[in-house]
Parts: sequence; structure tokens; C-alpha cells
Amino acid sequence: MSLLVVGSMAFDSIKSPFGEVERVIGGSATYFSLAASCLSPVRLVSVVGRDFPKKTIEMLSSRGIDLEGLKVADGETFHWKGYYEYDLNTAHTVRTDLNVFRDFAPSLPAAWRETPYVFLGNIDPRLQLDILAQVRNPRVVALDTMNFWIGKSPQLLREVIRNVDIVIINEAEIRELTAEFNLVKAARKLMNMGPGRVVVKRGEYGVLQMADGEVFAAPAYPLETIYDPTGAGDSFAGGFMGYLASRGRAALTEMDYRLATMYGSAIASFTVEAFSTERLQGLSLEDISMRLSAFRSLTEFRV
Amino acid sequence: MSLLVVGSMAFDSIKSPFGEVERVIGGSATYFSLAASCLSPVRLVSVVGRDFPKKTIEMLSSRGIDLEGLKVADGETFHWKGYYEYDLNTAHTVRTDLNVFRDFAPSLPAAWRETPYVFLGNIDPRLQLDILAQVRNPRVVALDTMNFWIGKSPQLLREVIRNVDIVIINEAEIRELTAEFNLVKAARKLMNMGPGRVVVKRGEYGVLQMADGEVFAAPAYPLETIYDPTGAGDSFAGGFMGYLASRGRAALTEMDYRLATMYGSAIASFTVEAFSTERLQGLSLEDISMRLSAFRSLTEFRV
Repeated sequence: MSLLVVGSMAFDSIKSPFGEVERVIGGSATYFSLAASCLSPVRLVSVVGRDFPKKTIEMLSSRGIDLEGLKVADGETFHWKGYYEYDLNTAHTVRTDLNVFRDFAPSLPAAWRETPYVFLGNIDPRLQLDILAQVRNPRVVALDTMNFWIGKSPQLLREVIRNVDIVIINEAEIRELTAEFNLVKAARKLMNMGPGRVVVKRGEYGVLQMADGEVFAAPAYPLETIYDPTGAGDSFAGGFMGYLASRGRAALTEMDYRLATMYGSAIASFTVEAFSTERLQGLSLEDISMRLSAFRSLTEFRV
Repeated sequence: MSLLVVGSMAFDSIKSPFGEVERVIGGSATYFSLAASCLSPVRLVSVVGRDFPKKTIEMLSSRGIDLEGLKVADGETFHWKGYYEYDLNTAHTVRTDLNVFRDFAPSLPAAWRETPYVFLGNIDPRLQLDILAQVRNPRVVALDTMNFWIGKSPQLLREVIRNVDIVIINEAEIRELTAEFNLVKAARKLMNMGPGRVVVKRGEYGVLQMADGEVFAAPAYPLETIYDPTGAGDSFAGGFMGYLASRGRAALTEMDYRLATMYGSAIASFTVEAFSTERLQGLSLEDISMRLSAFRSLTEFRV
């Protein structure tokens, strides 16, 4: 089934202990779409400037990503500049140029209003609410957010949270959002705000997923070379939602959500092996399935 | 089969966001022995002062811990004072009074020299070498250490490491010891120094275990109430080694080491639920087996 994503498309300039790149392709919606497109048809809602490479747009389209909701606006594409130190779990922002993203007012193509799976990427909660108002009876809506919005628009953010099924969020951010350090308690607090399921991203430590009466812990894949963690969280979300959308009309079970977590983790583990979206662009189902087997042997034990 | 441990017995004074305790029972060998004694016979080598409670010695003995190697010396017992902030992964030391531990020269009862399983707790590498010189053909020797010894006695520590089979070590400490941030690379570097297996303790994020061609990731149990993380690492090591020792004469397989990791994780998850060794003292095999099942459902997924 189809999966709608709204989020940013960007140029990223990144420095890490392993190298430096200038104005490479980035953005939460870009990573998400590429990851999800391995598993399900994707509908992308975003905005870029006239400077965004046609070649990239063609590449996204060739991966089966429907770009009818992508607006090309006069002006420059959103630009993020940041760096990582050895602790690759923490991104340090040097500057953010919103550019065409400043006036972004997402509007869904009429045919997209009944998309069953919806992912609200990490953008202004006002825009997330805009999208929510435009979709009709979605089956599953998931949300990502970040400290910037938790601090700046707490009321609007709570309103979005009240109306989604799943929150996918960083460890530090769920602690900030709920004012609770213990993750089990923090997840319960967050679920009391509305969503039935919380997925906590812990960077190189993997993912902790909680729903009523269920807890699932998935490690991250222990990689020997992590070049650039940018986009890992968005790729995770893309794989997660892509897997759910691929289940068709079947009722979603706890095991589906767990497997979604593993697909997300597998795809994210490829993202960080190269700068930008490089590794994702050529990713095959076979690559993913091999990584899933590796995850299985990584976590397997028999009592 | 029998399991020998050498390490500290102590009084701990601890402050955490969840309470404060003065001069409660602590020490690496105490936690280790109590944890291991759930699974195998334990031989304890340590020293306490005349002020150490007889009641505690009786309690240890009643758990099947052989205390022939415990010296009661004139003077006061080792005392550690520290605190935790909300990040319970990091212990902050306020003071360390070595007391009777300063002149500790461990000497093995003659009948203990052929103990098949040996754990060298986190003490001066000089003492660890002392013990190694006294045991004959041990089957498995494991070692714990800490930043203090990595900085103070790097040469002696390397000599111990060269002569053990397994190193059980904190995440920050393996990075410091190997001067390598990436854990996969760090573990390989450490294995190149001698041991065939490295077990990295990551606090609330669980354990990463590596051996030639094998990687195993185990989460920590997501607890709602962690009162005091003191002794979690030692309890883990006790459960780990206790399980290996319980395997009798069977050749140890990768699955044995994985299960050892899960036993260690299960027992450690009880330790942190109360201050001091309180929770460990009454721990039954049934408690542990229920927690192991919970771990299984925590990590299970089917591809």
C-alpha cells in the first residue's frame, strides 16, 4: 500500500572524523523516501529550490518515488551545515538556511488524500497539522520531531502527537519532551498523550520500541566503518514505515512492528556506511535481506 | 565446576537521585560471588577488616560461597564513596579508602590451585598476575579492569591481558585501553593482545560480545525503577562466569557464551533494582529463569 511522507529535502555540508563533504544531497524526506522505496510505493511531499539537481530528482523517480507532491520553488534549497565528533550519536549544527523551506505550505495532490500510511517528518508541527487535516482516514500515522520543536512549539506539537499512532523519536528528545529520564516511564507518559506505540532511536545502541504491554529491543548493527550518521534516523523510519505499508491489508501484529523495526535498522545500517544518500541509492532487497540475517545471528540465543 | 574469584569486598556509601545509603555491603568480589553462586560453586579470595559484619560473611557462606580464601585482617574494610546523577551509566568517585586492601597479598588455599574457572576482578594487575601464577591449567580465565589501572599500570595490565581468555570491560574503558573509538575495531585490537573473546559492558544499553567471527548483542532489561547501578557489572560477570562453570565438562560453544551473557544480564537486572546486594541475596533460579524468558520476548523477531 502507498506511503506518504512530508519532510525536508536539503543540501548538507558535513564534517566528521572520517571526511568532509560540501552541499551533498540530504533532508529527512529524501532519506526516508529512498529507504521506504525499497519496500513500498512512496509519495513525497516537500519543496526544493531551482538549484536542486535534476539528476537527483530523476534518481528518486527511478526508485518508484512519486514526486507529484514535490514543489520546485524560486530560490535556494534548504541547507544544513553540521559536524560530528567521535561520538557519532550527536550532530552539532553550525548553521541552518531554511531558504525555500521558510514559506513551505504543503498541499496534497487530490489523489493522495486517501493514502493509508503517513509519515510526518521532522518539520514545524504547524505543517504536520496541515497535512493531517488533508488526509482522510489514514491507517497508520507516524511522527518524528526534534528538540527544536519541543522547545519552540510545545502546544502545537502536543496537538500533533494526540493525533498520531506512532511516535519515532530520539532518546534525548523523548526525555526532554516528557521531562522523564527513565525511558520506560517516558514512553508510558508519551503514550498517555495519544499514540499507541513509541519507537525510541538510540543511535549506535539501536532501538527500543514500546506499546501497551510490549517492549522490543533491537541493537544497531555493529559496523566497523561509520562514515556519516546523517540520515540514519530518517532511513530507519523509512524502512520501518515501508515495511508496514508493504503488509497490504493484513491486520498489523506486534511481530509486524518488530520486523518493521528490523527492516528500519537494516536499512539505516547501510546509510551510515557512506556520506549522503550514496549507499541507499543502489540498495537492493537482497542487500537488506542479507543484513536482516546478520541481525538475526547477532541477537540469537536459545534458553 | 568450581569458579574462583579474586576481587574487592567493601563498604559503599552511595548517593543517587533515588536515595542515599551509608556503608552498605559492596565490592566487586561480593557482587560477583553472590551472582555466580546462583549457578555454580564459588571460591572467594579477598580481604576484609575486623569491622566487616559477621552476618554478611554467614550470608555469603549460606549461599554456597567457599570463604577459605577470605582473609580477615587487622584494620578497616575497603570503603568506596560515590554518587550517580540521572545518567546512571557513570559512577562518580568521591573517595576511595583502600584500608586493609592496601597490603592485600592474595594467596590461594592449596586445594584451590586447580580451580577450572577463574575470574580476576577489577584490582591491581600485580595482584591479578599473582593469582595467575598460583593457578594450574585453568580452563577459562576472565578479567575485568578499569580506567585507573589502564592509566596507572599499562604494562602490567597488558601482561595479564596476554594470559587470559576473556576480557569483560566497560565501553569507555575498552576505548581508552585500545585508543580506538569504534567498538568492533577496539575489540579486534584487544583480541590481538591475547584473549579470544571480549565482552563489552554498555550499562543500560546492554552488552556487545565479540570473538573470532562472532558478534552477539544483548540489550539490558528496560527497567522502570533503577535504584543503584553499583555492582551491575560485577553481577553480570558473576552470572556470565557462573553459567560457564555450570556447563561441567562439556566443550563450550558460542551458544554457551551467548547464554552466559543472558544469565549475566538477567542477574545484573536484579542487582540494580535495590541498593547494595539486597536483591541478590534472596535471588532464586526461578527468578532468573523468569527474567530470561522476559529477555527472550524482549529480543525476539521472526524474519
